[in-house]
Amino acid sequence: METEREQTVGDLSERALLARILAAVGDASQAEVGPGDDAAVLAVPDGRVVLTTDTLVHGPDFRLAWSTGYDLGVKAAAVNLADVAAMGARPTALLVALALPDALPVAFVDELARGLRAACDRLAPGCAIEGGDLTASDTLTIAVTAVGVLDGLAPVLRSGARPGDVVAVVGELGAAARGLAILFDRFRTPDGTPLAVDAALLDATERADLDAQLRPNPPIGLGPVAARAGASALMDVSDGLLLDATRMAEASHVTIAFDGPLDDHALRGGEDHALLACFPPTVRIPDGFVRLGVVAGPGDAAVTVGGIPASGRGGWDPYRDWDAHRG
Amino acid sequence: METEREQTVGDLSERALLARILAAVGDASQAEVGPGDDAAVLAVPDGRVVLTTDTLVHGPDFRLAWSTGYDLGVKAAAVNLADVAAMGARPTALLVALALPDALPVAFVDELARGLRAACDRLAPGCAIEGGDLTASDTLTIAVTAVGVLDGLAPVLRSGARPGDVVAVVGELGAAARGLAILFDRFRTPDGTPLAVDAALLDATERADLDAQLRPNPPIGLGPVAARAGASALMDVSDGLLLDATRMAEASHVTIAFDGPLDDHALRGGEDHALLACFPPTVRIPDGFVRLGVVAGPGDAAVTVGGIPASGRGGWDPYRDWDAHRG
Repeated sequence: METEREQTVGDLSERALLARILAAVGDASQAEVGPGDDAAVLAVPDGRVVLTTDTLVHGPDFRLAWSTGYDLGVKAAAVNLADVAAMGARPTALLVALALPDALPVAFVDELARGLRAACDRLAPGCAIEGGDLTASDTLTIAVTAVGVLDGLAPVLRSGARPGDVVAVVGELGAAARGLAILFDRFRTPDGTPLAVDAALLDATERADLDAQLRPNPPIGLGPVAARAGASALMDVSDGLLLDATRMAEASHVTIAFDGPLDDHALRGGEDHALLACFPPTVRIPDGFVRLGVVAGPGDAAVTVGGIPASGRGGWDPYRDWDAHRG
Repeated sequence: METEREQTVGDLSERALLARILAAVGDASQAEVGPGDDAAVLAVPDGRVVLTTDTLVHGPDFRLAWSTGYDLGVKAAAVNLADVAAMGARPTALLVALALPDALPVAFVDELARGLRAACDRLAPGCAIEGGDLTASDTLTIAVTAVGVLDGLAPVLRSGARPGDVVAVVGELGAAARGLAILFDRFRTPDGTPLAVDAALLDATERADLDAQLRPNPPIGLGPVAARAGASALMDVSDGLLLDATRMAEASHVTIAFDGPLDDHALRGGEDHALLACFPPTVRIPDGFVRLGVVAGPGDAAVTVGGIPASGRGGWDPYRDWDAHRG
């Protein structure tokens, strides 16, 4: 359809590109000092700030054949917001460092910025992009830092689970991994090159799984809800329920006993960005959380499923599992 | 000298690599929650936190032929600490997101971590690496977020300069640009491929210039000193004094009048990470700052040097000036 060459990042100065991005992100700053000075200045009324950083890299973390700029903006925001929520905190700001190839279309960057903003608006109202950085790179890289506040509550750690607690989850388990399997199995050439997704080939369930992979929708608001309810432990399930529950059990020196059965995608799939929580038995479990088991004293296995020890191995290791060169 | 193949990033799991990095960084955490949970939790007693992010990318920002891992750790920390200092704030934490090629030697990553820690210890005592992220990438990328506190002071913006203020700088101007010129002119093949630096070919001044480029030593502690003294405006000089002074003058709606003369490297060189400050005439300028001129009311030029209008153009545009493909 295009008759003229598409404008790319390499056609613009840093200043012009930054102006485009700030326009697409929109003026939602809540900060004392927002974008434009050497650093942002944010209010933290209760004197404790929550900070996390997570990066998406072309190749290991996404493929341009499969993700739009908008998708990537949503995902880069969502995975970081989830880590803030997993402390029981309310996200207030993102800093976004973009490393962009010169050949990337400017329209793609606009969409990325729109996706970042849309994810904040939907998942964490009041959270805005308050700063960032632009540089050139051969590899499209989106490094986000998310900032949160605890509103006077104590942070909820992964080390706080105690025997007798109820184990519960909110968010979908396994869907993102099923979505990734759809991409790997059905939208690659035989030599592994990613192919554009044809949604007409997918049924509604498959489309939902693909959405969970490409545009995650984690239950950010329920992190602070769990904290306020009295959760003893809380963490983001991003590397598979089994591996993350093993980490929580080890940090807490307990056994996490899932009632089971749980299917393999739910146990071992990655990128769920669900919240795994433990609640003391006296606590009323907040709406949305689903009970999956109980916490027992330390035993031979960190995690059991239906009474059977389950190894955390086989969980998602983002460093190894999505190979940059295999497609 | 090596008889066995060097261990590379691709040989280790994420967990093993992270353990190596945390060991090299050392246990200097001052945080309520440091590395190991979903996010860090930091104390901000006065209720305002300062945040900035800056990324170093292989190609546009550094070359492995010229920089050691240690150099890169120092530089990645220093450029971010400088942005915190430029608000008048005291750095308290770094988050470090590393995107690493599989072929990168593990020893290089150890050195990078040591460099990050050394820069914190030297430039901003009390500042520690409190979190981060690891991912694989074809392009070595170091995305740092720096966190600071204001200790009850107001942040010092670039927009606060007023007519009658004294303009002053602390830190070396031009040395980093001269160091880059040494690398480009003397340590590349005719086709532009970077060559390892042979320090024996350099005199003491040249070695100092190279140090300023590879291992910057910005005056971090003087940011809070300037704020406490009553600076009206403050900013990091990273894109050349002329371009950054132009930004300060435009943000403040004033003219910055340098007494002059100033040489071209000082005016247009990049990556100084000096601090440009304005002080009301009643303020005693803190030790270390050197008076360079005065602030006048708005005029035809944002900046003058020796009374002559000077264009900010020609300053360092990191997005364009160090081309990833030209070497």
